[in-house]
Amino acid sequence: MATLNCDMGESYGPWSFGDDEGIMPFVDCANIACGFHASDPLTMARTVRLAVGLGKKIGAHPSLPDREGFGRREMHLQPEELTAAFTYQIGALCGFLRAEGVALSHVKPHGIVYGMAARHMPTALAMAKAVAPFGVPLFGMAGTCHEAAAAEIGVPFIGEFFADLTYSPEGALIIPRKHSAIDLDRAAARLERALKTGEVEATDGTPLRVEFGTICIHSDPPNARAVAERLRQVIDTAG
Amino acid sequence: MATLNCDMGESYGPWSFGDDEGIMPFVDCANIACGFHASDPLTMARTVRLAVGLGKKIGAHPSLPDREGFGRREMHLQPEELTAAFTYQIGALCGFLRAEGVALSHVKPHGIVYGMAARHMPTALAMAKAVAPFGVPLFGMAGTCHEAAAAEIGVPFIGEFFADLTYSPEGALIIPRKHSAIDLDRAAARLERALKTGEVEATDGTPLRVEFGTICIHSDPPNARAVAERLRQVIDTAG
Amino acid sequence: MATLNCDMGESYGPWSFGDDEGIMPFVDCANIACGFHASDPLTMARTVRLAVGLGKKIGAHPSLPDREGFGRREMHLQPEELTAAFTYQIGALCGFLRAEGVALSHVKPHGIVYGMAARHMPTALAMAKAVAPFGVPLFGMAGTCHEAAAAEIGVPFIGEFFADLTYSPEGALIIPRKHSAIDLDRAAARLERALKTGEVEATDGTPLRVEFGTICIHSDPPNARAVAERLRQVIDTAG
Amino acid sequence: MATLNCDMGESYGPWSFGDDEGIMPFVDCANIACGFHASDPLTMARTVRLAVGLGKKIGAHPSLPDREGFGRREMHLQPEELTAAFTYQIGALCGFLRAEGVALSHVKPHGIVYGMAARHMPTALAMAKAVAPFGVPLFGMAGTCHEAAAAEIGVPFIGEFFADLTYSPEGALIIPRKHSAIDLDRAAARLERALKTGEVEATDGTPLRVEFGTICIHSDPPNARAVAERLRQVIDTAG
Repeated sequence: MATLNCDMGESYGPWSFGDDEGIMPFVDCANIACGFHASDPLTMARTVRLAVGLGKKIGAHPSLPDREGFGRREMHLQPEELTAAFTYQIGALCGFLRAEGVALSHVKPHGIVYGMAARHMPTALAMAKAVAPFGVPLFGMAGTCHEAAAAEIGVPFIGEFFADLTYSPEGALIIPRKHSAIDLDRAAARLERALKTGEVEATDGTPLRVEFGTICIHSDPPNARAVAERLRQVIDTAG
Repeated sequence: MATLNCDMGESYGPWSFGDDEGIMPFVDCANIACGFHASDPLTMARTVRLAVGLGKKIGAHPSLPDREGFGRREMHLQPEELTAAFTYQIGALCGFLRAEGVALSHVKPHGIVYGMAARHMPTALAMAKAVAPFGVPLFGMAGTCHEAAAAEIGVPFIGEFFADLTYSPEGALIIPRKHSAIDLDRAAARLERALKTGEVEATDGTPLRVEFGTICIHSDPPNARAVAERLRQVIDTAG
Repeated sequence: MATLNCDMGESYGPWSFGDDEGIMPFVDCANIACGFHASDPLTMARTVRLAVGLGKKIGAHPSLPDREGFGRREMHLQPEELTAAFTYQIGALCGFLRAEGVALSHVKPHGIVYGMAARHMPTALAMAKAVAPFGVPLFGMAGTCHEAAAAEIGVPFIGEFFADLTYSPEGALIIPRKHSAIDLDRAAARLERALKTGEVEATDGTPLRVEFGTICIHSDPPNARAVAERLRQVIDTAG
Repeated sequence: MATLNCDMGESYGPWSFGDDEGIMPFVDCANIACGFHASDPLTMARTVRLAVGLGKKIGAHPSLPDREGFGRREMHLQPEELTAAFTYQIGALCGFLRAEGVALSHVKPHGIVYGMAARHMPTALAMAKAVAPFGVPLFGMAGTCHEAAAAEIGVPFIGEFFADLTYSPEGALIIPRKHSAIDLDRAAARLERALKTGEVEATDGTPLRVEFGTICIHSDPPNARAVAERLRQVIDTAG
């Protein structure tokens, strides 16, 4: 059965972001920000404890080193810089997991580097190399360089379906700088169709095939908690 | 036999710091900066590889979050903030160790927080709590809160002798913002005396007792490589 | 007549903070964050434009270099470091003012360094030195080192009354890490009394004298807009 | 007569960079880093004082917000973000100039954004918009979008010749991440030719036309001081 995953722990210092407490109960996997696009050590410690307390699987959610741009601005690192940036962030999260006595479950890249790696093999390989030593799966988009790079490096791969984003006709994700409220019925219908038929409709109506083992939602739409609750029901009903 | 340890990997981006390649062969333990007072992910990856290539023991060298001040400006974090900051940094270093297939050897705090923790039990406890889950010893000053906090939390403790710093009559370290060249003969003589008698002379001539299992040097005096080579000889001769 | 001032522009990247749009109409002076404890260049540009559009006086709101701690963690800079940090931030804000064709009105230090300078003359002097070349008044607490340092350096000084903070019996401000909702009637009554009698009640009931030419409120209590609106009425009625 | 300009003040915290004291006497214009790719407030204060003490013209040397990558990694900001980033940095430098009672002379963009703007009009326009309110010339490459954007916004423009970089056959600069020693005779010969004929030889021998009113050198080649001294002589002899 497909799992539900959500990006979590994206507050920073005095600034809060997303309704983690509200959403966490409904997800299976928490992708926890690692301090480069969002979060700070104390926020990571607290987010890990929240997830552990509810028995959730915890993945690292690393990104480009761009806090001001929330990891959503294109930035070109050398492949070895990108590998090191991811190793650093995944390792940092594992420190908090060690303190709580739990294991890392997966790695889910954040923001624009996710899309960059989908289209650019050296970027995808740099990421996969960082994930390999941790022995966990990479969450990514099936059929893109994500999957090919994981295969080449020998990293397990789990495809994602994005329940709260739209797909271009070419199958690329459209990631807004700021999320607006999600239409619950439409999101539920899209997910039901994806679960039954393996298809999603692109912005122009084109049906796209999506292969996935996990379903991603975000914590920052204004109605994120309701989205999580509704899609949880869809998954449980389908399962 | 006492080991020789040195703070390493304190370059940052385009800025280099210390002669790591020159010093590494002479030390037993490399304390590697973790990105908060110095270093960046790529520098950490390279420094870890340098140390692994020479078969050195690798410790984390975490600090306060103050890169501009090189972790040498007093800054007051809540205890849980400090614990989280250290967990984050130690974890990040462990990511690189995992990529190289080696284990963490120890933790050696950096800069002013080292001195703050020596005198302030809540600070020392916050540090020791971060170290505990990693199951390695804390390097610190014997007879200070470092040792007491390690004992209270159940973290193994190894006392340090500072071969290239001076001690105040009260036994506190005098840490310069910028290191000048070390007098080799004087440093060698001090270390020989410390190894034989367990004593060091304070700035005013007072003899102080120092209990230690490891000897610390820094990478930034202009003659750091020569200091490392000379003190290596002193240790090997004494041993 | 005393002016009403408020700290503004304390969002950062994707993280919002405070209801600037809601509060701005009610204040006379906007103290705009300069990027060290909060804000970023785009946020500064927008906040300046918001204030200029409403014809408000604009002051710089510089702080210690500690974004994660929102400038509310004690941190010890050398006096010349602090002066330079303030010069940098005030200058940066003046860049945006120049782009809009308006002049700087005042400087109001942010967070813990405000309190540190109140009690510590070298800190207050370091601040006042940074303000001097800009030829504008420093907002601070009358009767503390703020006022003495301003006098010594030759910087005009305007005392502040804090309408939404409490005073210790010694006259020190109690600054919470997170503001909770303000009791409107109590805040209005305190301000009325302060305007009429120049007195405020400390936490233990002790009456304290406060000399002020401006009244400070914060943008982050949940009911900040209502506080601004109510205190605006109190001032206008008193005036 | 063409002026000699050099990027200066690119140290950061404890890390030094370039021989500013050695080079400053030979240049006419100091382009001073503004804290985004290098420098910090205290370094800016000191670099400004060094330049003022020698009577040099001072320009702002703003960059992308990427200290770890020294502003040499491609990064895509929205035009209004880039304008704000430059306004912030130029303003910050002007704060130090105000403290010393001197005026801003020019703006010279740093690193990869210089090359990006040469080829991309929206980037060049975003830069020129930030420069306009300061009423000083933009240093850039003649015949590129730098010049066109300056003309469109109404910012005075001064073309640069790069004495210590090589040009591709298409006229683009080849900027190394790390500068190696410059061949003095070759650099002198290139500059003499450029001054006499307005031509420079590209990497493949193609002669390129260069129009310039100022000549740029960098502070980080190992022999930067000797380069400055030699090119100063070439300029003085030609003049």
